[in-house]
Amino acid sequence: MNDELIQKAKNVRKAWEFLRSQSAATKNEALLLIAKKLDENRHRIIEANQKDVEIAREKGVRESLIDRLVLTDKRIDGMIKACETVAKLDDPVGEVIRSWVREDGLRISQIRVPIGPIGIIYESRPNVTVETSILALKSGNTVLLRGGSDAINSNKAIVKAMKDALENSKLPSSSVEFVENTDRKLVEEMLKLNQYLSLIVPRGGYGLIKFVVENSNIPVLETGVGNCHIYVDESANLEKSIDVIINAKVQRPGTCNAVEKVLIHRNIAAKFLPVLYEKLQENKVEVRGCKKSVEIVKDIKIATEEDWETEYLDLILAIKIVDSTDEAIEHINRYSTGHSEAILTENYSNAIKFVESIDSAAVYVNASTRFTDGGQFGFGGEIGISTQRLHARGPVGLKELTTYKYVVLGEYHVRG
Amino acid sequence: MNDELIQKAKNVRKAWEFLRSQSAATKNEALLLIAKKLDENRHRIIEANQKDVEIAREKGVRESLIDRLVLTDKRIDGMIKACETVAKLDDPVGEVIRSWVREDGLRISQIRVPIGPIGIIYESRPNVTVETSILALKSGNTVLLRGGSDAINSNKAIVKAMKDALENSKLPSSSVEFVENTDRKLVEEMLKLNQYLSLIVPRGGYGLIKFVVENSNIPVLETGVGNCHIYVDESANLEKSIDVIINAKVQRPGTCNAVEKVLIHRNIAAKFLPVLYEKLQENKVEVRGCKKSVEIVKDIKIATEEDWETEYLDLILAIKIVDSTDEAIEHINRYSTGHSEAILTENYSNAIKFVESIDSAAVYVNASTRFTDGGQFGFGGEIGISTQRLHARGPVGLKELTTYKYVVLGEYHVRG
Repeated sequence: MNDELIQKAKNVRKAWEFLRSQSAATKNEALLLIAKKLDENRHRIIEANQKDVEIAREKGVRESLIDRLVLTDKRIDGMIKACETVAKLDDPVGEVIRSWVREDGLRISQIRVPIGPIGIIYESRPNVTVETSILALKSGNTVLLRGGSDAINSNKAIVKAMKDALENSKLPSSSVEFVENTDRKLVEEMLKLNQYLSLIVPRGGYGLIKFVVENSNIPVLETGVGNCHIYVDESANLEKSIDVIINAKVQRPGTCNAVEKVLIHRNIAAKFLPVLYEKLQENKVEVRGCKKSVEIVKDIKIATEEDWETEYLDLILAIKIVDSTDEAIEHINRYSTGHSEAILTENYSNAIKFVESIDSAAVYVNASTRFTDGGQFGFGGEIGISTQRLHARGPVGLKELTTYKYVVLGEYHVRG
Repeated sequence: MNDELIQKAKNVRKAWEFLRSQSAATKNEALLLIAKKLDENRHRIIEANQKDVEIAREKGVRESLIDRLVLTDKRIDGMIKACETVAKLDDPVGEVIRSWVREDGLRISQIRVPIGPIGIIYESRPNVTVETSILALKSGNTVLLRGGSDAINSNKAIVKAMKDALENSKLPSSSVEFVENTDRKLVEEMLKLNQYLSLIVPRGGYGLIKFVVENSNIPVLETGVGNCHIYVDESANLEKSIDVIINAKVQRPGTCNAVEKVLIHRNIAAKFLPVLYEKLQENKVEVRGCKKSVEIVKDIKIATEEDWETEYLDLILAIKIVDSTDEAIEHINRYSTGHSEAILTENYSNAIKFVESIDSAAVYVNASTRFTDGGQFGFGGEIGISTQRLHARGPVGLKELTTYKYVVLGEYHVRG
C-alpha cells in the first residue's frame, strides 16, 4: 500500500471524528474562509490550470473534454459563489427525521448524522475538487480526493487554497486531503480502505465507474453516466419540442444530463424530423439515426447498436422512430443508464404511463433533461448525480451525504 | 455460472417488472394467501425441519444455534402472524416524500418506489425465509433466496407453501425464488448478478458478511453482527441495572441485539460486580473479565483481546472496569460493530455525551439493547438490522426496502 494514501486516509478519518459534531456556525465560517482563499489565489489557480490545458491540447484531448478542464475567472467566481451558497444552506445534521413513544414509554428518535469520511475519485473537472469538498464539510464529513492526472496542477493549487483556509478555521486542515500521486494503481488501493472511508463516489466516465463498482470493498455511490432520452409523442407541441431538444443537447453537451437519444413517434416523424435535423445542423450537432430516420432525411448517418448504448458527451445525437409510447418505454428501459428521461406530449395517459414505467432517477414530462442538477433542484450544489438505487438517486446534496442513528431513551426498560 | 441460479435470477427480475407497480390490495391478498398456505402445510414444514435439526445435532452444532434452526408450532404461528401484520402495514410505494414548485413553474416531486429484486443470503434460521419474502413483496420487490444448507429441508417446505400461495394470487409465483443447490461456490456467483439483482442482504455471522462485502458487485446491506455493549455509569440505579443487563444477555442470547460486553465504572465496581456476577451465574452465563474484574471476583475467567472483538451469540459475557464515561466511549467506538450500545446512568451530561459520541445504529439510555428490532420499533418486521451507514441503519423494514425517483412536470421548460 502507498504510504501517502494510507496516511491521508487516516488523516481524514481522524479529522472526521472531530468534524462530525461541529456546529453549523463553525462549518460555515470555514466555507467562507475557503471562498476568500480561492479569491486571493485565483491567479495562481488559473496559471496552474493553463499548464494542465496546454498538456491536454498537446495530447489531442477533444474540445468537449477540454471544456470540462478549463478554469476561467468566471468559473472561479462560480466556485466562490458555491462556497457562499452552501454556507447559507440549512445544516442537515441533527434533524429529527421521526420520533415516537412506545406504549411502555420508551422514546425512539431517528436523528440525522454525518455519513463519514468520503473518498472522491474523479477525472478532469477541477471544480469537482471544491464542489465536493464544501458539500462534504457542511454535512459534517471529510474527504479524501483523488483527481485525474489531467487536472493535477489545477487541483494542487485549489487544494492548497482550501487547506490554507482550513488552517485559519476551527476545523482540522486534514478535513480535506488530496492524493498527489497519480499512479493508477492507487485507485485500486483506495477502494480497499473500508477501515477509514465510509463511502466512495466515483465521478467520471463509464470505465471508471465500472472499475470502482467491481473493485470496491467500500459502499459506492454510482454517479453520472447519463445516456438520457427524450421521447416526442405524436401529440407533442412540435415547435416547443424543438426548443427543448436543442436545449437538452446543446446548452452544455459535456454534462451527464445532456440528451443523447431522441425517440420520435412515427406519425409525426415525416413532419418533425426534417425541422429538427435542420435546427441540429445549425447547432453543429452530428446526427445519427435508425433506418427509418435515414429514409426521411438522407444526410443522417445510420446508427449502430453501439450508438444506442453510448453516452456521447459531445455534439452528437442519435434518433429513432418508434411505433408507440410502449416501444419508446421498452427502448429506454433497455438502453438507459437510469439517469434522466423525458416525454414531450399533450396526451395525459401517455404522460402517466411514461412516468410510471420509466425507472430512472429523474423522469420528465415536457421539460429538458438538463434540470437534473443539484443547483437546479435547489440543493445548492451536488456531489454527483446518483444513478444507483441505494441510499440516494439523482442529485446528491447535503441531505444525501448524511445517514441517521436511532436514539432510544428509557427508564431501565427491558424487553418482555 | 450455475444454470439454476441464472434462471431464477432472471425470473425474479422479470417478476419485479410486473410486481413493482401492483396495488397494495393485490400484494396484501398474496400475503394472506401465504399465511393460509403456511398454516395448511405446518405439519409438513415441521417434519422437514425435524430432519434438519437431527442432522445438526449429529454434527454437534451448539444449542444456541440449534435454537435458531428449530421450528415449533409456535414459531409457525409467528410466521403466519407476521404475514397478517405485514398485510396490515401501510404500503410505502407511491408516497410523495417531498414536492416543490420552482419559480419558473417546474414541479419537482420525490416519490417512493420499490428498490428492485433483492438477493438474500442467509444461514440457519428458516423463519428468515418468510420474514424477508413478505417484507420484500409488500414493498413491491421480489426475492432470490439462498439459505444455509443446515435448513435446506425446512426452507424447501416453506418456499413450496409460499409459491403455492402465489400461484393462487395475482402476483407471479416467481416473485419468490429459492436456490436449492447448496454448493458454496454459488454464493460467489450470485454476488456478480448485478444485471438482475439491485441489492444483496447477507444475514448471518461475521464470516459470511465479510465474504459478501468483499466479493459483491451488487450494493450490499450489511446486517446483523452485534458486538453490543452496556456501560454502567457510577450514577446508575444498580438494582434496575442488573435487570437490564440480565434481560439484554439472557432473554435470547443467540440474537444480534443481545449484549456481549458490560463496562462498569470503577467507583461502583466493588459493590456492583459481585451482585451482577451472582445473578449471571444463576442464569448460567459464563463470565469473562479484565484484570480488575478478576481482582474483585476471583472466579471470573480472564478475558483476552479476542474477547473484546467477539460476538458470542451465546450465554457468555465479558466485563471491563473503566475509569470514566470517556474511557467507556473510547472502548466501545474501538470494538463495537455499530449495532446497539447502551448507557445506564442518572447523570444527564454523561447520557448526552454517550448519545453524541457513540456512532452506532441504535444508542440507548437506560434500556436493554434487545429493543433494536423491527417488531419492537413498530416496523412490523425487518429484513435485518443494518450495521452499515449507507441507505439504512438499524431495523430494515418496508420503507427501507424502497428508493425514490424524481418526477418533474413542466410546460416545455428549458434550462436558461
